[in-house]
Amino acid sequence: MPPQPSQLILLIFNSDFSNSCLFSILQQNKGPGVACDFELHVNSLVGCRQSVQFQSSEFNMPSEKSEKAMSPKITGELLRQLRQAMKNCKYFSEPIQAYIIPSGDAHQSEYIAPCDCRREFISGFDGSAGTAIVTEQHAAMWTDGRYFLQANQQMDNNWTLMKMGLKETPSQEDWLISVLPENSKVGVDPWIIAADQWKNMFKALSSAGHSLVAVQDNLIDAVWPDRPERPSTQLRSLGLDFTGISWQDKITTLRAKMSERKITWFVATALDEIAWLFNLRGADIEYNPVFFAYTIVGMSTIRFFVDLKRLSDPAMREHLQLDSPSKPELSIQTFPYESVYTELQAICAALGPKDKVWICDKASCALTQVIPKTHRSPIPYTPLCLGKAVKNATEIQGMKMAHIKDAVALCELFAWLEKEIPNGNVTEISAADKAEELRSQQKDFVGLSFPTISSVGPHGAIIHYRPLPETNRTLTVNEVYLIDSGAQYVDGTTDVTRTMHFGTPSAFEKECFTYVLKGHIAVSAAIFPNGTKGHLLDSFARAALWESGLDYLHGTGHGVGCFLNVHEGPCGISYKTFADEPLEAGMIVSDEPGYYEDGSFGIRLENVVLVVPAKPKYNYRNRGSLTFEPLTLVPIQVKMMNTELLTQKERDWVNEYHRKCREVVGAELERQGRQEALEWLIRETQLII
Amino acid sequence: MPPQPSQLILLIFNSDFSNSCLFSILQQNKGPGVACDFELHVNSLVGCRQSVQFQSSEFNMPSEKSEKAMSPKITGELLRQLRQAMKNCKYFSEPIQAYIIPSGDAHQSEYIAPCDCRREFISGFDGSAGTAIVTEQHAAMWTDGRYFLQANQQMDNNWTLMKMGLKETPSQEDWLISVLPENSKVGVDPWIIAADQWKNMFKALSSAGHSLVAVQDNLIDAVWPDRPERPSTQLRSLGLDFTGISWQDKITTLRAKMSERKITWFVATALDEIAWLFNLRGADIEYNPVFFAYTIVGMSTIRFFVDLKRLSDPAMREHLQLDSPSKPELSIQTFPYESVYTELQAICAALGPKDKVWICDKASCALTQVIPKTHRSPIPYTPLCLGKAVKNATEIQGMKMAHIKDAVALCELFAWLEKEIPNGNVTEISAADKAEELRSQQKDFVGLSFPTISSVGPHGAIIHYRPLPETNRTLTVNEVYLIDSGAQYVDGTTDVTRTMHFGTPSAFEKECFTYVLKGHIAVSAAIFPNGTKGHLLDSFARAALWESGLDYLHGTGHGVGCFLNVHEGPCGISYKTFADEPLEAGMIVSDEPGYYEDGSFGIRLENVVLVVPAKPKYNYRNRGSLTFEPLTLVPIQVKMMNTELLTQKERDWVNEYHRKCREVVGAELERQGRQEALEWLIRETQLII
Repeated sequence: MPPQPSQLILLIFNSDFSNSCLFSILQQNKGPGVACDFELHVNSLVGCRQSVQFQSSEFNMPSEKSEKAMSPKITGELLRQLRQAMKNCKYFSEPIQAYIIPSGDAHQSEYIAPCDCRREFISGFDGSAGTAIVTEQHAAMWTDGRYFLQANQQMDNNWTLMKMGLKETPSQEDWLISVLPENSKVGVDPWIIAADQWKNMFKALSSAGHSLVAVQDNLIDAVWPDRPERPSTQLRSLGLDFTGISWQDKITTLRAKMSERKITWFVATALDEIAWLFNLRGADIEYNPVFFAYTIVGMSTIRFFVDLKRLSDPAMREHLQLDSPSKPELSIQTFPYESVYTELQAICAALGPKDKVWICDKASCALTQVIPKTHRSPIPYTPLCLGKAVKNATEIQGMKMAHIKDAVALCELFAWLEKEIPNGNVTEISAADKAEELRSQQKDFVGLSFPTISSVGPHGAIIHYRPLPETNRTLTVNEVYLIDSGAQYVDGTTDVTRTMHFGTPSAFEKECFTYVLKGHIAVSAAIFPNGTKGHLLDSFARAALWESGLDYLHGTGHGVGCFLNVHEGPCGISYKTFADEPLEAGMIVSDEPGYYEDGSFGIRLENVVLVVPAKPKYNYRNRGSLTFEPLTLVPIQVKMMNTELLTQKERDWVNEYHRKCREVVGAELERQGRQEALEWLIRETQLII
Repeated sequence: MPPQPSQLILLIFNSDFSNSCLFSILQQNKGPGVACDFELHVNSLVGCRQSVQFQSSEFNMPSEKSEKAMSPKITGELLRQLRQAMKNCKYFSEPIQAYIIPSGDAHQSEYIAPCDCRREFISGFDGSAGTAIVTEQHAAMWTDGRYFLQANQQMDNNWTLMKMGLKETPSQEDWLISVLPENSKVGVDPWIIAADQWKNMFKALSSAGHSLVAVQDNLIDAVWPDRPERPSTQLRSLGLDFTGISWQDKITTLRAKMSERKITWFVATALDEIAWLFNLRGADIEYNPVFFAYTIVGMSTIRFFVDLKRLSDPAMREHLQLDSPSKPELSIQTFPYESVYTELQAICAALGPKDKVWICDKASCALTQVIPKTHRSPIPYTPLCLGKAVKNATEIQGMKMAHIKDAVALCELFAWLEKEIPNGNVTEISAADKAEELRSQQKDFVGLSFPTISSVGPHGAIIHYRPLPETNRTLTVNEVYLIDSGAQYVDGTTDVTRTMHFGTPSAFEKECFTYVLKGHIAVSAAIFPNGTKGHLLDSFARAALWESGLDYLHGTGHGVGCFLNVHEGPCGISYKTFADEPLEAGMIVSDEPGYYEDGSFGIRLENVVLVVPAKPKYNYRNRGSLTFEPLTLVPIQVKMMNTELLTQKERDWVNEYHRKCREVVGAELERQGRQEALEWLIRETQLII
């Protein structure tokens, strides 16, 4: 699936720039991650004269709840209760005049659990992006063009919709300053707001004589009697056969990096980093095999904050060596999830004058501010994030296996679609369900890695489309079908997009598909110096489209976890350069250029690829070279190609790719006795000339 | 010539990274602009663990003075006088304990005039990069690996060389903190230090209990009795036939932009921006047709600060309408150059509460700090910088004419070299002199646009090599010859690099040349969306080299002025992304990939190219597309090409380029009756198959 945005998106546009134009782009590209791609493209249309900042939490994935009814939630009584809580000195020593309710959880996760959907609870608006602010008199909701209609339908008259991106819409700061009485206090839950976001809001309010204050108890929770429990699913420990490195060795490596940089403590808050560190997985958040926890690692202690009930299982205690640690410095001290704050306070109270504490600059304001500024050493990427990104041999082997199984399921799906579509019984939803069913038959299947994008004809042009009962379209032999899907297996995570036609594609559809294919190959076959940043490869994916005056409004690739989140940092392939670390062998990213003809069709071609050493003729300054090896092994539909537009090199690439698909996936299909799919694979991997 | 660095260069390297390796790179790439290219490449070799900041002023062009003798300057008495001045309350109310002497002038120019070479005067060290700091006890000089040897030779025992880039070398801040007594005052001339550099030094010193103080009178000038006068060369006014837009219209456009952003005053400090605004040129700084001046533009007033003697000429007074302005708001008030400070103070004293003043964030600390913070609106690029970058039809026509004349001179040079080299009488210096002589025969020739890089064999691998009598090498039929040169004509500025062999090149030389040519063509022929930033095109220039494991350690292109500086912002083509604005039609940049085989040969292929609209088959979202049109029209040596490595498209590009050279330059050679050069041109532009 297309890359997600990073922390902050800068939408730069001219004051002359027609709003209707901006919103037609925003609305055509519903779904997460899309808006982040506007930087370049809106910039392209106009000069840079005016800037608006969107927060990434506002571009999260629509959750299951998007399928809910669209009638407004009655919020009068709830708001009354919230305003009472705002005046109640039980929560803050003085009354507060405004309360900010961002989307998001205390770990700054991309996907969130139901108990963290507080903004939805208070307003009724369940879009993936939105920030609510409630004052004594007003209740206002900031969201972007994708959600104007939906927010209007889901919110009652107590709420004012603040249409982000419109010139006349004030920023949250400006609006607060315009409505607040002098010397007001604005409250926010410091766990939900990231340290850098806090900083900006704090500055803006202070300069206008107000103050931003941290309210430790969440005031929405205070008025939410039937709030869902925080999930505490069963933990799964992964052995060396899946992880390649024991958690003990990961701790040792982490400490070596800390000692190299003279760091005495490290605070881990990102859920996937903690899961990776301890070789544990959970199911607390849909699609993401993570669990709610914190970890603080010192040079001789490890503190693990998690619902302690989860650690009662003897096998789990054995995995973590809770009862008989091999060495004292590898002894894990366990604490309740909630006690991270007080424990970190205690650690900080005992810091020596030269002690330094590492924490990610995107961690919550609450934990960040516990660490005194002189001891705080914020980092854009933690050593766990960087360590997790470079997969070891075992993880690579697992990812390869997962992709072979995934290819088996997809070959079966496509063989089935080819047979069933002419009967007119297959819909976007039933095709997605069939894909899930086939994947679930594969060994060590755990679940999907993100909601399947199954889209026919014009729906394909909606980049993050997800079929809903009211939009569900039937697959026919007359329209292009795009399916972007993936799964979690215990050995790896997959994410693959194929675009197919089950009848006769038009010359224009084939032409566009071929340009996208050329871009996909240009990235996949690129050879580049060791340490090149991914953003330097992005234009390779676009050159063929650009030559014909075409383009696509999203990045080209994102990092992929190993039985972890399908989107992970710190590497990627994008024209956006603010968030990528150099590529190195063992990193895994997606390669997914596309083309979207609004109202007609969408094309995207996505493989997950592994960064591997390359051995070109020369080796300039002994730097070494890298290239990509496709892990995804699913045929690319030849029927959609205009092979005359391909160079001989590109045809060779397609033939070699298809040879490998046939060899590797064919053997597995044979082993599993899936004859029809095998025949389909053989038909679809004929040589092209 | 290869791009120059921007304000700050971040050299990031691992503590494991061998210093000898770093310095071998630094030393092999002597000359300006090179070190700025290390960011990616050093990064490529290692992780990012440690960072050192170099200031751009430290990578300026070596001046004529590099040819001076290398014996140390005796500085004992000078330093004694300087230390006395540091204690003299005539200059600062209290004694100062350290004085910083950066390289650079009050306009943050890339090239500086002799009167501004203060660091050289006090130390003897005349390299292009260096910062001196003198305390009561010490005198220390920070410079980079290119200059370790030279600095050691030119400085006497009073000085300690601080080898930048070595792990053990402290930063200026750290060193100051380590040697200064408590509560020290560190002085600096606020005119020479840029606002952002001041800010960093100020913070570091403050946090250690010291203070950075602005000493208004330069203390070097105080001890420099025979300091050269600030140049005040004759000004040249350019008519509409050269500039296309009157200065009055430029002022009107500037004011429209100010009023759009609610700005009441604009302070211009960059010399090329002021020259462009008033359609004036000077010769105060070698190679750069600029003159020392400041300008402050309000909504109804224009204040011009310049040596008033330069405005006595009646034609000049007429040009500026000094005696009979057409409208009151276009009346220019003239002031002595030195009075800019007090005039800006007076303006700021009268500011209304909502008044805002634009100043470039790279302007001097002195002028920046005159503007109260609440009224200051710093911008990375001024409207003049952006306006100057987009050339109008007249400027484009002038640039085309200048490049035709320049091509005539180069065709003559190459025809002459072909004839003379076998006689063994041509050296790097005599070839450069011949190029200058031939250029000077062309109409409206003013001078060179930078020192000619004329390099044979291994010298070609030194990216900014400049032949000196002691290095001067003879051109032979056995070695590759690289010449990177350019001139200032009244109608335009040129910058062209050709790499030739006058005997039989080796297969490897041809192979490398062909990869560089492929990269050059890939950029030149690229079609890309309107508003794309140049850095997104950089990898196109490298793809063919990368595929064979090769690369080059500099950017691919820089902006070029029109009868102005050969390096100008804000656009360029580089993997460095911190300083480029989107490309638009009318911008002019260089396209100059290269390959450097240390100790053997260097290859660079440089055209100046104009950004022009492209008309591909489709027009996605009506964004429009752009491509490049070469302005440089000098044959590319076919003998150096391995045409088998070229695609048909690339061969077509070469043939079409050569057809155009023959048609356009051929006609001019014919008109000028330069028969031998014409014959050479015809021979060198035969079709390739």
